[in-house]
Amino acid sequence: MAASTPLLKDELDIVIPTIRNLDFLEMWRPFFQPYHLIIVQDGDPSKTIKVPDGFDYELYNRNDINKILGPKANCISFKDSACRCFGYMVSKKKYIFTIDDDCFVAKDPSGKEINALAQHIKNLLCPSTPFFFNTLYDPFREGTDFVRGYPFSLREGVPTAVSHGLWLNIPDYDAPTQLVKPRERNTRYVDAVMTIPKGTLFPMCGMNLAFDRELIGPAMYFGLMGDGQPIGRYDDMWAGWCIKVICDHLGLGVKTGLPYIWHSKASNPFVNLKKEYKGIYWQEELIPFFQSVTLPKDCTTVQKCYVELSKQVKAKLGKVDDYFNKLADAMVTWIDAWDELNPSGASAKLPNGAAK
Amino acid sequence: MAASTPLLKDELDIVIPTIRNLDFLEMWRPFFQPYHLIIVQDGDPSKTIKVPDGFDYELYNRNDINKILGPKANCISFKDSACRCFGYMVSKKKYIFTIDDDCFVAKDPSGKEINALAQHIKNLLCPSTPFFFNTLYDPFREGTDFVRGYPFSLREGVPTAVSHGLWLNIPDYDAPTQLVKPRERNTRYVDAVMTIPKGTLFPMCGMNLAFDRELIGPAMYFGLMGDGQPIGRYDDMWAGWCIKVICDHLGLGVKTGLPYIWHSKASNPFVNLKKEYKGIYWQEELIPFFQSVTLPKDCTTVQKCYVELSKQVKAKLGKVDDYFNKLADAMVTWIDAWDELNPSGASAKLPNGAAK
Repeated sequence: MAASTPLLKDELDIVIPTIRNLDFLEMWRPFFQPYHLIIVQDGDPSKTIKVPDGFDYELYNRNDINKILGPKANCISFKDSACRCFGYMVSKKKYIFTIDDDCFVAKDPSGKEINALAQHIKNLLCPSTPFFFNTLYDPFREGTDFVRGYPFSLREGVPTAVSHGLWLNIPDYDAPTQLVKPRERNTRYVDAVMTIPKGTLFPMCGMNLAFDRELIGPAMYFGLMGDGQPIGRYDDMWAGWCIKVICDHLGLGVKTGLPYIWHSKASNPFVNLKKEYKGIYWQEELIPFFQSVTLPKDCTTVQKCYVELSKQVKAKLGKVDDYFNKLADAMVTWIDAWDELNPSGASAKLPNGAAK
Repeated sequence: MAASTPLLKDELDIVIPTIRNLDFLEMWRPFFQPYHLIIVQDGDPSKTIKVPDGFDYELYNRNDINKILGPKANCISFKDSACRCFGYMVSKKKYIFTIDDDCFVAKDPSGKEINALAQHIKNLLCPSTPFFFNTLYDPFREGTDFVRGYPFSLREGVPTAVSHGLWLNIPDYDAPTQLVKPRERNTRYVDAVMTIPKGTLFPMCGMNLAFDRELIGPAMYFGLMGDGQPIGRYDDMWAGWCIKVICDHLGLGVKTGLPYIWHSKASNPFVNLKKEYKGIYWQEELIPFFQSVTLPKDCTTVQKCYVELSKQVKAKLGKVDDYFNKLADAMVTWIDAWDELNPSGASAKLPNGAAK
């Protein structure tokens, strides 16, 4: 693994949503510099975002998004880090790693700096095992395997679509928990990667996340958050619930665990509470909805799954709040925009190479 | 937690199946001596098993089992560590911890000896979260909590019925994996406890296992293995699949992860292969069976669930091999024997206190 050429150098983009200068990249330089960055500038487009020298990047502000997507730009959130998903859409690479600009390099218990990106790539390049639980965690890691009682027919695994990394220092808590436990820090380094079992939903955090665009990209939509919307801080959660039901349907894997990043600063719990409170209420209806979603057999591509899901959102969540009708429409717009920017991907995935 | 009285001292029995002198207890003395031991002697009943001084124990050999259970003793395996489940049945305590006699005290990464029993008790005394995955693992551990996006209605959790501990040094591999990787050792200490999600099966190993007898005891039957049976080394697996579908049905939790024990010696892979080979073949049918089991609503006690499960085993697995017809009958015998030895438990669990 001690390759002189970084793994997937030409097949992976790093997507960073930001409103400020990207000084945080200095710390990541040894790990990120070989890769291409896609920076999605949120907020005032007239502001200039400084990127440290030596990084290869493209940057999109709101004006760029509006110009590229035209009326479809309304599916991309504004004044919310949910805007990052525009970067997923304009990328031409097979893999995406996305990270927040308040995330720094963490150290493992031996004091060594963790190359988070390298671990995500490992996770994505080895299979997942969603159909049966392995008690020694990821059986594909060195030094471990499938334990006694693990059916041999399931040991080949399935392709891994998503790698969800964790955070040392500031844990990813909601506003109520932040308020109740303002001083809690995550100091526990759990040396594990595992597949989230089929049929199980999880809270996917967008802070430190990697995925295979070809396998799941069109479902990685971060929804309508921020400016003009009734909620925030549910962008990654929404995407996580959507990708999980689609991965389960298509037989793809989702891993969580390593790598850790160092999350430096807790966001303001009072501001967060304002953003979250409708989400906290709504999620009590969203989880049962996603737990009971079934996709028909003819949904054989991510796009078809996602459009079908949008219909079910409208039919079943529209009555929770009109917001979900808007969101369902935005989900369709997102797919249209994705296919417009990724024409080969859209048709390549149709069975029998049929034209769209 | 630095209580002078060990936790659950009068509410927990340690069950040990063995064919040899229990010198291994010396190493466990500081942790086990306050508790009562139930030793199930396997093999030749005329042999004397030496137990180190100072331990409080009762010991049952095959003659004792035959005397206590009469004709029902045929549900208890002979010449196989599956006989340990007799100890679960004769216990009068609420909790059981069972451990193999080739398991020693492991050390955590700081070099401190791990009190495995204390960790199992922690696991059993705090709730499980089977309905939604928490990415920071057990939210009830100190220093952690539920992460953002975890529905608040699910944060109370459910009672934990089973705590499945792991093994450093010799991993619990099947014979083919042992043969292929004779030198693999588990050196990775994963500092986590987690709930196995609802609907997910796992390979439960009986080497280092604790459970709540009142909640799940009657389903902890280790099947027909060893002498006169066509398979071995599937006793704990069988129990694990049964308890998991019953826990899922009754809304109980199963945890896995910490504590580790030090597993000293790999068993002979050639002998194991002979014991396992039918199981390796059959499990390909067993897993789909257990994945699709549904228990009717009126199965409100573990006993009712287990008897219903035995019927489904007979109906659906009897055609795989006649062994499963015998096993299904033994499952019913086991429940009869359990209720005979635990009369209050049997009736106490009937709704409305109705007589059985």
